[in-house]
Amino acid sequence: MSRIAYVNGRYRLHADAVVHVEDRGYQFADGVYEVIAVQRGRLVDEEAHLSRLDRSLAELRIPWPMSRRALRVVVAEVIRRNRILESGLVYMQVTRGVAPRSHVFPPGVASSLVVTARSLPRFDRDAARKGVAVITIPDNRWKRCDIKSVSLLPNVLGKQQAKEAGAFEAWMIDSDGAVTEGTSSNAWIVSGSAELLTRQASSAILNGITRRAVLDIAAEQGCRLVERPFTVGEAKSAAEAFLTSTTSLVKPVVRIDDTTIGDGRIGPLTERLLELYAGHMLAQEVETG
Amino acid sequence: MSRIAYVNGRYRLHADAVVHVEDRGYQFADGVYEVIAVQRGRLVDEEAHLSRLDRSLAELRIPWPMSRRALRVVVAEVIRRNRILESGLVYMQVTRGVAPRSHVFPPGVASSLVVTARSLPRFDRDAARKGVAVITIPDNRWKRCDIKSVSLLPNVLGKQQAKEAGAFEAWMIDSDGAVTEGTSSNAWIVSGSAELLTRQASSAILNGITRRAVLDIAAEQGCRLVERPFTVGEAKSAAEAFLTSTTSLVKPVVRIDDTTIGDGRIGPLTERLLELYAGHMLAQEVETG
Repeated sequence: MSRIAYVNGRYRLHADAVVHVEDRGYQFADGVYEVIAVQRGRLVDEEAHLSRLDRSLAELRIPWPMSRRALRVVVAEVIRRNRILESGLVYMQVTRGVAPRSHVFPPGVASSLVVTARSLPRFDRDAARKGVAVITIPDNRWKRCDIKSVSLLPNVLGKQQAKEAGAFEAWMIDSDGAVTEGTSSNAWIVSGSAELLTRQASSAILNGITRRAVLDIAAEQGCRLVERPFTVGEAKSAAEAFLTSTTSLVKPVVRIDDTTIGDGRIGPLTERLLELYAGHMLAQEVETG
Repeated sequence: MSRIAYVNGRYRLHADAVVHVEDRGYQFADGVYEVIAVQRGRLVDEEAHLSRLDRSLAELRIPWPMSRRALRVVVAEVIRRNRILESGLVYMQVTRGVAPRSHVFPPGVASSLVVTARSLPRFDRDAARKGVAVITIPDNRWKRCDIKSVSLLPNVLGKQQAKEAGAFEAWMIDSDGAVTEGTSSNAWIVSGSAELLTRQASSAILNGITRRAVLDIAAEQGCRLVERPFTVGEAKSAAEAFLTSTTSLVKPVVRIDDTTIGDGRIGPLTERLLELYAGHMLAQEVETG
């Protein structure tokens, strides 16, 4: 079956999904994006993602390319045309549109919208429980990491560095020696005194939708939750560690640089949060737009 | 006459100059660029630009899309097809290529290359002498500004802020209160004691080709040249100020925020450097590749 992408008003074969070379996303990284998981054919936390998209667009003063309601219809249609019946991902990108190259905002230009989707293997509990390694690297990104922009070059370089070190992710360290987040995930630890720690939302991190869902779940469970920066030292001496993202869900971190975390396997609180998050993810209500 | 762009092996009508939505330049800002001026039909400092392109590509480990010699041929052909007989600009962008979206470097993918060009009005000495205003804003960019990447979102936002303040450019200020550079130009001042100051090349600034040409000219002229960071205070109390870039040449800065610099007109050293730079720019030798 051919993959189909939505590009600026048309559903196109994936191979023909193109944008102009003067799209400001291409020349200036002047755009934002969202990745939404599909489980059992339903979008996971769609409204939260669209609200974050709204915030990113507002911060950059990029107009919505269409109404939120229309975007929901397009997303549903892309899922349908790509026959994502079980698990998958939807990627959507909005840029400031096409204009002759000049840094300033071009007047009277329509925002660009691209929506793609792909199927993924069905959720696998055993695979999800498997721990991963992370490395730590200096955080050299810009100071507005709260905006989910396509300005991802440092994230690309960090993720590549992780891969070459045999790790799954790189946790980025600020000038105070504290972990900000991963290159495409949020960072969490469970301290020796059973506190669940993750950095508070600020311009230093992206406020992940999975992060927020896990915060809600942890609060419901009565966890001792503290949102604050934690140091690399705290992370390495933690009882448990994990990361969260739309694609990684709640993923156990069992090694940080050369230090094994806990007994090198998924910790008990991580396991409980993964289980509850999987329940949340698989139990999405169909919302009507 | 139709504009023509070179895109990944083909010369195309500008309207048909497109790249795939999964070009990593579009999804990750995973690419670099150069802008080269054309004067009297000749490229200004072409070799210096291509050497900087080489450095940017090497820093990001993006392979050259073709040999340097072949790229020179493509650039010359784009200029020819767009009939840039007098003044203009060539824009070239190289990205890590097209691959299914994933942060890590994709294996075995060819780099993308786009080359566009456009005509500009002939060099106008009187227009070039006209002073501009700059504002100062915090530098919130990433820590590898020495790489000429398309990760330009903070530069876009800064330039827009300048425009809305009635200014031509924004000078960005680091955490020590020193000027790094403009959003698309390097920053210079002439102190009260006739020292010519510009920040030394480092990962905090882009080492402009015009910057380097002006450094050479100033050295030849026996100027008292100091490459070091200067503060906003130093800039506002300077005798002269100017900015340099491929498109702005040597442009007098006559206001910084609310402070008039000198007597509000082009200063004598700025004028001399502009004149000498214009001479350099208009006297490019034809090099054979």
